[in-house]
Amino acid sequence: MTTLTQLPEILLMGPGPSCVYDEVYEALSRPTLGHLDPLFLEIMDEIRSQLSQVFQAGSDTLTMPLSGTGSSGMEAAFANMIEPGDTVLILVNGVFGVRMVDVAGRLGAEVDAIEFEWGTPVLSEPVQTKLKAKRYKLVGMVHAETSTGVANPVEPIARILDTLPDRPLLLLDCVTSLGGMPVKLDEWGVDIAYSGTQKCLSCPPGLAPFALSKRAVDQLMARKTKVPNWYLDVTMLVKYWEAGGGGGRVYHHTAPINMLYGLHTALRVILEEGLEAGFARHSAAHDQLVQGLEDLDLELLVDPEYRLLMLNAVKVPVGIDEAAVRRVLRQHHHIEIGAGLGPLAGKVWRIGLMGHTARAANVKRVLEALRLSLD
Amino acid sequence: MTTLTQLPEILLMGPGPSCVYDEVYEALSRPTLGHLDPLFLEIMDEIRSQLSQVFQAGSDTLTMPLSGTGSSGMEAAFANMIEPGDTVLILVNGVFGVRMVDVAGRLGAEVDAIEFEWGTPVLSEPVQTKLKAKRYKLVGMVHAETSTGVANPVEPIARILDTLPDRPLLLLDCVTSLGGMPVKLDEWGVDIAYSGTQKCLSCPPGLAPFALSKRAVDQLMARKTKVPNWYLDVTMLVKYWEAGGGGGRVYHHTAPINMLYGLHTALRVILEEGLEAGFARHSAAHDQLVQGLEDLDLELLVDPEYRLLMLNAVKVPVGIDEAAVRRVLRQHHHIEIGAGLGPLAGKVWRIGLMGHTARAANVKRVLEALRLSLD
Repeated sequence: MTTLTQLPEILLMGPGPSCVYDEVYEALSRPTLGHLDPLFLEIMDEIRSQLSQVFQAGSDTLTMPLSGTGSSGMEAAFANMIEPGDTVLILVNGVFGVRMVDVAGRLGAEVDAIEFEWGTPVLSEPVQTKLKAKRYKLVGMVHAETSTGVANPVEPIARILDTLPDRPLLLLDCVTSLGGMPVKLDEWGVDIAYSGTQKCLSCPPGLAPFALSKRAVDQLMARKTKVPNWYLDVTMLVKYWEAGGGGGRVYHHTAPINMLYGLHTALRVILEEGLEAGFARHSAAHDQLVQGLEDLDLELLVDPEYRLLMLNAVKVPVGIDEAAVRRVLRQHHHIEIGAGLGPLAGKVWRIGLMGHTARAANVKRVLEALRLSLD
Repeated sequence: MTTLTQLPEILLMGPGPSCVYDEVYEALSRPTLGHLDPLFLEIMDEIRSQLSQVFQAGSDTLTMPLSGTGSSGMEAAFANMIEPGDTVLILVNGVFGVRMVDVAGRLGAEVDAIEFEWGTPVLSEPVQTKLKAKRYKLVGMVHAETSTGVANPVEPIARILDTLPDRPLLLLDCVTSLGGMPVKLDEWGVDIAYSGTQKCLSCPPGLAPFALSKRAVDQLMARKTKVPNWYLDVTMLVKYWEAGGGGGRVYHHTAPINMLYGLHTALRVILEEGLEAGFARHSAAHDQLVQGLEDLDLELLVDPEYRLLMLNAVKVPVGIDEAAVRRVLRQHHHIEIGAGLGPLAGKVWRIGLMGHTARAANVKRVLEALRLSLD
């Protein structure tokens, strides 16, 4: 039986989970309160306000954390907003776009996808053409494609939607971007967004920050059919997360109390540092990593203009056993980096600089470990 | 902003969450590992084995924890086992039976329900009649009905199913029973079961222990349609939780690492105490509570034969403001007890004796606090 008191400290530089703030570890072990305890209800309200700030959401945007990992955020986004036969357009350039197609299809949506080469960004032109030819209820895209290290430009897509007479809902996967780079739901006009706790929020995995614009909420409340997923039904969850007219809360499910302590604390640390200061820290760590990789003659997969700061896909040099390098890093240097996924399996390493991980000392350490491993 | 380092210790004697083992609090704050880290994969295997033991499952039963609270277990049970048009019979005598009807209906099942008065158990005779008249794919029932304090007899229902030529799948909600009273999946012939971590397992809420018999897995794998819930799709989750033929694991979603440390530790504590010793401790605490309540002239809702050990529905005496009593207990005595739900709202208190909470000192404390509050 594994003795958990003797777990090693691994420097988490993969695609997530990232290094966790000490304050968050501490918060996870605070005394559990009841899910209807007056003190816990205050903490819930504070989390909603914190989420609005990191999402840069409008005052009429509904925010709440869902009781599952980031992937439950994707599930909830489609389960709540889609009814059978609804038309959906997904912009695909990596694993998480592919997953959106799968999730929406299972829920009975009529799904079209525009595919872009993995490692390249979503482009506006084919999206514009598609949207002129057909009316969609919802357009889904991934902000930070963790599988390839591409930052997809959201604003150009949002501006195309603005030109349409009956604007489709814009759904944005912010799992890896939130807290590490600007996410501006209100300014961009994003209607549905979700994230995960274990990337740039530097909390362990287990919760999905979630946001719906007023327009999305209105459409949700006007559904003709019940949300087919009771557990993630936002029409019911909102009655627990928002005090009603009479100040009452309606029990839905028992919230994951201690994980919410962790999220509350992570968001406090992030907002105390300041969003802009945090983005600058991610940017500096990225620049340092890129320079160091160049010094090691290692190439990045993605063009500089579209590189994610917090997830760097590094091409595996010819003749190198990529899995062996990861094993040496993990066993000898206590560092985790990620493997490639899908068509990029075996071809890239994925080095994460997410949240608390994005610090100069960590970058220096992984570069030195890579240098020794590749020698 | 709430300071989490100053949260009070509340004695949790409601319907869950229950008091958390110190070792579990400690485990929650252990260093986060990657979800594919070799050490974490060992911990996963150990959790599956621990779950098989507490569920008293057969060796060919699939067990794993799902990445959501107990309610996600109910969602997963129906989402995986039901296809549109499937016939389902639900035995309803409280909130969680009502919820099953809702969950199954949303997934397109053809749902029949047999309703029993809240506070009374499920009876065999009407079930037998119904099952003779119509063929059902699945029969669902709640083992420990937390909303009323009734222990439903599972074995008589299972034996009725055994007599049918094409045995329906037996689905059992074990959210409140697991770890606190005998749950014998193999002996009873339960095909689908789920629980939550925050009841008799004394871990914070956030995970759903889940089990499928071989027969259920075979039916799942033979589905005609994809599971309509990507996040909880057990056909994919099993590829992450079970090492495949080549020893490989397929990433599905990032597992809630630290919560799983908590579950691993809680199950270790429970199995070290011994299941039978734990059940005896619950039984002794229950007897002590019942005696003390009688001394205070307080009555229980449920007949002795069908009382749950770990959830005691106590009738609110005439003329007493039940909410005021709960407030006094919470504010002056730092004890949480639960209110009634649905038709029992305002009529009962619910006093939980779950897991670590089920100890003589705690029972004494709540009885003394009740005595003072009712004076």
